[in-house]
Amino acid sequence: MAEGLEPAPVLREINELAKRGRVPVRYVGRRALETEARTEGPQGVLAHAQALPEWDFDELCRGGARPPFLLAFDGVTDPQNLGALLRSAEGAGVTGAVLPRHRTAHITPAVTKAAAGAVERVRLALVPGLAAAVSRARALGVWVVGLDEGGDQSLFELAVATEPVMLVVGAEGAGLSRLVRERCDVLARIPLKGSIPSLNVAAAGALAVFEVSRRR
Amino acid sequence: MAEGLEPAPVLREINELAKRGRVPVRYVGRRALETEARTEGPQGVLAHAQALPEWDFDELCRGGARPPFLLAFDGVTDPQNLGALLRSAEGAGVTGAVLPRHRTAHITPAVTKAAAGAVERVRLALVPGLAAAVSRARALGVWVVGLDEGGDQSLFELAVATEPVMLVVGAEGAGLSRLVRERCDVLARIPLKGSIPSLNVAAAGALAVFEVSRRR
Repeated sequence: MAEGLEPAPVLREINELAKRGRVPVRYVGRRALETEARTEGPQGVLAHAQALPEWDFDELCRGGARPPFLLAFDGVTDPQNLGALLRSAEGAGVTGAVLPRHRTAHITPAVTKAAAGAVERVRLALVPGLAAAVSRARALGVWVVGLDEGGDQSLFELAVATEPVMLVVGAEGAGLSRLVRERCDVLARIPLKGSIPSLNVAAAGALAVFEVSRRR
Repeated sequence: MAEGLEPAPVLREINELAKRGRVPVRYVGRRALETEARTEGPQGVLAHAQALPEWDFDELCRGGARPPFLLAFDGVTDPQNLGALLRSAEGAGVTGAVLPRHRTAHITPAVTKAAAGAVERVRLALVPGLAAAVSRARALGVWVVGLDEGGDQSLFELAVATEPVMLVVGAEGAGLSRLVRERCDVLARIPLKGSIPSLNVAAAGALAVFEVSRRR
């Protein structure tokens, strides 16, 4: 924590949580803290944490107590969008998220902040490429639904109940890549009533994860 | 347009649309264009447009051919969120949006860009304060639904069909202001299955507008 912060309830709460979790708190000069912080506007508090655990993709596809419900990213590059999507996914009860090592934003500090805790709570699997991951998921019995504004089925009429499902969202602007689009079991579109041809990817993804969530 | 741009299909399309709409195109130096641009990364093209028309709040509450379906903002301050919400609202077929003059972001260039066209397509009414607007809407027969994580009704079980509706979304973090919360007909929450207590406001708003839209 930065020295000389104005007392505030949130700081007291952080101190108490740290004490309860046996996390040592050190006070350092404001400048030292800001040099080390990796987000903009660090607000005087910074934590050191272990690296995020990585989950095995096959394991996520096989599921455990609950049938697999995965969200996969095919080219989402805006950290705000990726963070908001992980947060929505957590709220909808996904069992894991799938990120390719390239063409998509990584879990940066900005993503972590936008995700509001979801980065630490959603199981994340990194895969070399998403097209291959789609094929692999299907081989493991997972039904793969790509979100695509040209999809032939309405998201709101998907025949999904409790089977293993992986939703795939594409890049801002360009949508799903061709290879991924070709390998999905079904392409679902969100029926729009206006004249703008698509939604923001974070809004579209929120609608999709909650649609699957409600049908379970 | 900036002089010396690399030829690209999108630039040809802009030129053609301009010609069809009888909009004169001028070529200026890159620096002159960037000085005048009001967004970051202007990409070499800039348009001058008339001010947005303002709609009368009472008129939006009375509706026309379609029953009123309004989205109101109570303290949304992030331009990305406001823009994305307007875009979702357009896609869900709202008949108008309501912005208070204070405590909420205004329609800035950043909002306009994030809205991807919705700012020009959704009827916007500015009101002095949102609490008074809620009361006025109710007096005009509009059913007012506030989105609130402590709401006692599930968004997915709202008894809404074709009646006039105004959805109200609150500020990032703080949610609805007390006065607005007290004046809504009903407070609806989004049932969450994870452990993070709320969604990003743009995700929550997208779910809400599409929920009403689907029931019409």
